[in-house]
Amino acid sequence: MQKFLDPSSVALIGVPRNTGSGTFNNAEVMMRYGYEGKIFPINPNAGEICGLRAYPSISDVPEAVDLAVISVGRERVIPMLDQCIATGVSRIIIITQGFADADQKGKEMQEEIQRRAKANGVHILGPNTMGVLNNFKKFTTSFIDVVRPETFSPVSLIAQTGLFQVASQDMAYKHWGKAVDIGNGCDIDGVDVLSYLADDPETKFIVIHMEGIKRGAEFLKLAAQTTSKKPVIVFKTGRSHAGAKAALSHTGSLVGEDHVFDAVCKRAGLIRVKSSAELKDAIRALVQMGEMEGPRLGVVTASGAVGIMTADACEDDGLKVASLPDGLADKLLTGLPDWISVSMPIDIWPIGMIGGNYTGAYGTALTELLRSGDVDGVLGVLPVPDSPLHRNLNMVECIKDARNNSGNMKPLALWPYLDVSSFIDKFESVPGVACFDTVEQAVKGLAFCYRYHQAKMRKTPAQRQFPVDLDKVRPLAEKGRKEKLLVGDEALMLLDMFGIPVVKSDIARSRKDLENIASSMTYPLVLKLTGAAFLHKTEWGGVVTGNRDLKDLHRAFDRIVHNVSTRQPDVKVESVLVQEHVQGHELLLGLKRDPEFGHVIACGLGGIYTEVFKDINRAIVPIDREEADGMLASLKIAPILKGLRGEAGIDWTGLVEILERLSFLASTLSDISELDINPVIATSSKCIAVDARILW
Amino acid sequence: MQKFLDPSSVALIGVPRNTGSGTFNNAEVMMRYGYEGKIFPINPNAGEICGLRAYPSISDVPEAVDLAVISVGRERVIPMLDQCIATGVSRIIIITQGFADADQKGKEMQEEIQRRAKANGVHILGPNTMGVLNNFKKFTTSFIDVVRPETFSPVSLIAQTGLFQVASQDMAYKHWGKAVDIGNGCDIDGVDVLSYLADDPETKFIVIHMEGIKRGAEFLKLAAQTTSKKPVIVFKTGRSHAGAKAALSHTGSLVGEDHVFDAVCKRAGLIRVKSSAELKDAIRALVQMGEMEGPRLGVVTASGAVGIMTADACEDDGLKVASLPDGLADKLLTGLPDWISVSMPIDIWPIGMIGGNYTGAYGTALTELLRSGDVDGVLGVLPVPDSPLHRNLNMVECIKDARNNSGNMKPLALWPYLDVSSFIDKFESVPGVACFDTVEQAVKGLAFCYRYHQAKMRKTPAQRQFPVDLDKVRPLAEKGRKEKLLVGDEALMLLDMFGIPVVKSDIARSRKDLENIASSMTYPLVLKLTGAAFLHKTEWGGVVTGNRDLKDLHRAFDRIVHNVSTRQPDVKVESVLVQEHVQGHELLLGLKRDPEFGHVIACGLGGIYTEVFKDINRAIVPIDREEADGMLASLKIAPILKGLRGEAGIDWTGLVEILERLSFLASTLSDISELDINPVIATSSKCIAVDARILW
Repeated sequence: MQKFLDPSSVALIGVPRNTGSGTFNNAEVMMRYGYEGKIFPINPNAGEICGLRAYPSISDVPEAVDLAVISVGRERVIPMLDQCIATGVSRIIIITQGFADADQKGKEMQEEIQRRAKANGVHILGPNTMGVLNNFKKFTTSFIDVVRPETFSPVSLIAQTGLFQVASQDMAYKHWGKAVDIGNGCDIDGVDVLSYLADDPETKFIVIHMEGIKRGAEFLKLAAQTTSKKPVIVFKTGRSHAGAKAALSHTGSLVGEDHVFDAVCKRAGLIRVKSSAELKDAIRALVQMGEMEGPRLGVVTASGAVGIMTADACEDDGLKVASLPDGLADKLLTGLPDWISVSMPIDIWPIGMIGGNYTGAYGTALTELLRSGDVDGVLGVLPVPDSPLHRNLNMVECIKDARNNSGNMKPLALWPYLDVSSFIDKFESVPGVACFDTVEQAVKGLAFCYRYHQAKMRKTPAQRQFPVDLDKVRPLAEKGRKEKLLVGDEALMLLDMFGIPVVKSDIARSRKDLENIASSMTYPLVLKLTGAAFLHKTEWGGVVTGNRDLKDLHRAFDRIVHNVSTRQPDVKVESVLVQEHVQGHELLLGLKRDPEFGHVIACGLGGIYTEVFKDINRAIVPIDREEADGMLASLKIAPILKGLRGEAGIDWTGLVEILERLSFLASTLSDISELDINPVIATSSKCIAVDARILW
Repeated sequence: MQKFLDPSSVALIGVPRNTGSGTFNNAEVMMRYGYEGKIFPINPNAGEICGLRAYPSISDVPEAVDLAVISVGRERVIPMLDQCIATGVSRIIIITQGFADADQKGKEMQEEIQRRAKANGVHILGPNTMGVLNNFKKFTTSFIDVVRPETFSPVSLIAQTGLFQVASQDMAYKHWGKAVDIGNGCDIDGVDVLSYLADDPETKFIVIHMEGIKRGAEFLKLAAQTTSKKPVIVFKTGRSHAGAKAALSHTGSLVGEDHVFDAVCKRAGLIRVKSSAELKDAIRALVQMGEMEGPRLGVVTASGAVGIMTADACEDDGLKVASLPDGLADKLLTGLPDWISVSMPIDIWPIGMIGGNYTGAYGTALTELLRSGDVDGVLGVLPVPDSPLHRNLNMVECIKDARNNSGNMKPLALWPYLDVSSFIDKFESVPGVACFDTVEQAVKGLAFCYRYHQAKMRKTPAQRQFPVDLDKVRPLAEKGRKEKLLVGDEALMLLDMFGIPVVKSDIARSRKDLENIASSMTYPLVLKLTGAAFLHKTEWGGVVTGNRDLKDLHRAFDRIVHNVSTRQPDVKVESVLVQEHVQGHELLLGLKRDPEFGHVIACGLGGIYTEVFKDINRAIVPIDREEADGMLASLKIAPILKGLRGEAGIDWTGLVEILERLSFLASTLSDISELDINPVIATSSKCIAVDARILW
């Protein structure tokens, strides 16, 4: 990648002869941007472009070319590519659009490009890209006239669009250091660029914009390694399309693409943002403030009203208003009338005004909050009086002193108001300080610093191994593989082989069977229609509960036969499942194999409210005991499962172990596509799988 | 209020002698701000302040004073107030803090101020206020040196803090027209100011910041009237404290203050914002774009990536991406290579670039979207190339022409990017156009325009009357009033009197009773502990379900007696409630009387998941059939209630009528403080109250 971003020489194939407004001449843009390497314009109809000698073809260029940029019409791209290859150019950016982004023919041409790149060992960025930007080297391949910024930050971008480069001041914080537009990604993709940026010493922070992902497993692994070195922020768009695909199981429909990506971010320590404004605030927060080691926020404002707004924002963003450090009230109130009091959030206004030393009081509060062991980060709300009357407040010095006196680098977010723009740079020149547009954004910024800490602190779970008799598993799994499906009794049997407790149940193929089976079970019993033909048993009228004796059972059997024949006269009921009735909390546990990231494990509320409340947590397989516990503990129904109002909680440990075993099952039978245990019935003494469905 | 905001003369009591930086001299600020009326500084120790003659006391001022502004220490406020009253000044602003905002003594002084104001017919703003701002008259009473803005908008503010005036450019859009800081509100409160602004011809939009509310019923009524004249945006802070109060009923705890305020906003047509950023975007959207008559958004972007971001934002904010208007594809694609296609959101980039007329294509798309009957508002994302190379795009003219050619004023929100700041005013000079910082904020802005439309279109429900025998109601209500509580059988009886279907049930005081009652009912029966002493029956082990015969019933009775005596040996079970067992969906219906806004009616999911999922909707009483229907239809469980996967839905009409009857009950028994019907069991044939609790 380095040569893409820092070439000594560039050939521009298809650069227009005209220059100036509306010509989108990338040679002109590149020169204006300050590129110091050699530029070779390629245009058969021009002798000179932008004062540079133009060549009819890349093969006419007398020197070695590090990078070729192709922007001819789509029909001429492949011939130009061939010329590059023939000339020995090994890095090529294809700006041209109209490939996989357009129609079938474009898709085929792109596949051809891909083949030729592979066969010849050249690397291609694009097609349909704006190319690269490297502010460290004053280099851009943009054909839109972006103006080189005077300052930029060590934040590098991987995007699926050039927009983030063009709208740099709207999407980034102080402009990107480097940026790569993946475009259609026919060769170089996000994983390649991430791999480069992970080790790039100039890049201290990475931002990824993505719409979809290829090579998911590699991405997950690489991202997890990268985030232990530098923060990685991800803006994945296309959330609204998530879950649009049809799924065959409950788990399938409850684990949409966007949920999987959330689980990926959690596992890899990626910091996910959901809008451009969040993106910008997150970058600013991390670049300026870094890590916040806990959720406790100290607040100094010049207005009680803002204190209340801060408390709202903390609740929204998962932070807590810290308690007032011991002794601070005394320090602030000495010599003041006794009607003045202080609490957190600290309103410094009456203290500062009546005490006559506003800046002093502000500085004391700020310093003590930064110093306090009960405070993880600080929010300062302060007027920046750039008016002739109030210049003497000198808040910049106040912030600087507080930082120095604190002796630490805890995050300090500011919302300065009152004619503020000229002050932001001054405040942000103090280490660990960031300024935000609103108080809520300042809180959100701090929350990102805390999320970064949590991401850094995360552990990678290791799969616990369980003794499973694979010789017994194999034939059943083989059957499922062949029939694409195991349901009812067989699905439960497979779970049982993996040590997951299942309900006592058996298949009755006759009335006689029914009686025999019932005699070895404890009433009440449940009768269920079974067989792959009846995927949605309830829709067939195929479940009868509450059978208290044999009479009930026979009646239930009649009813199921009747229901089925009413719905479809030619379908015959060949067998029914007899199960002991277990009463308790209905939960859903499941697996779904994501085509990119592998198995996702899910758990949550089962029963009729499953789809309505979607109280489901998800994680990438494997999980360990701690993660399983966390998945359960963060469910909304967790308080009920733990036992509300004196009621006994469920067998939590048992449920955690089922999740671990399910994760082990997924790693053993890695080709299962979906698996539902619906429901798992959880009581205070046991958690037990009552019905299941496994899809290959 | 008018004289507060536009006085001919002002006396400033307590103005400091010193001027300049750090003195917070409000005479100096007022003069610098451009006030053209007369200023009388009052200070016994100065002959002259800011070049104005100073008077030792207000009684020394030789002319009539429209407005006095007091900013002396809190101990001297009442004497100064007395002097004002004695001199005949009838409008007084008390800037000084340290009253109800501080301690008990301050609270008492404030009550004294209030008494004197009332007794003497003078009006007071404050204490603890920054006073007023009126940019139409270049008037401010601020002691902080705010600089008069060159432009401002016809948006007036009511706030509980001066911060919104000081940080005007951060909180408002183009500065407030007028602003009033209510402060502690000892006399003039939000209702007074709203009443003034509602009829103020200079005020076209109203913004309210509030932390709490007094005179809720009057506020609700006035707000509802005002919003039919002009948009009112409300920023109520202190959300995180909502629901912190303890409540005795489920409904009580599920109808927190913040929920009540949401219901108030809905009823009154107020547009609620939840952060400063939303506030600013909402003001800009409404001022510049006004009403959006539907949720269908037409989108023209210069980037497919932004199209995807727009779709995400639409889903977040309740808008829909419109379908592509008929014929537009043909208009845009004529003469272009056939691999270029167009869909909504429209990515104009390939069309404009390859067609060679970017601005033309953009304008066509924009005009046609504005014209289309399938589009309610339009979002335009466009580069604003203020660089020498791309000036000819001339997007401002493009926007102007599209507006003119459309022949209508549909909202048009823009996200212009690429060196944009100098262009915003130009774009926003086109009628109905607003520019936003990010594409998601632009969508949110349009969503506010749509919410404004919905607010305007709302209807005020009228209570349906039901024939109720009040002679029968009276003694039972009287009993409840006396005992503060009706539970079980008696509560159900009261509901029955209001025509709400209740479960068949009776009280058994003996074994004999039990047998008699059971003989007239249909098994299975439920036995419940009854009596005010047993508020949480389940905690007492006081509910036994599934009794199929008399033997079961006796056993159940024994069990309840045993459970109670185990828990508290000295408590005797004197009676039990026998009920028919009704099986169906468990719902919760209820009432809660808010001290400010009166009865709030609630409905939603009952049973064990009530508190966990809080799937509850709330409305201010009275409601009509349409509102009751809407409350149910917008529950998350509505699809289940309507019948999922071929299952029968509940008796919806019956449930709607129960809500109407409950609203009627609230309007009849207006002193009920809380009422729970928990559960209402809903089946396909009926909805029936099974347990209830009424608190006075």
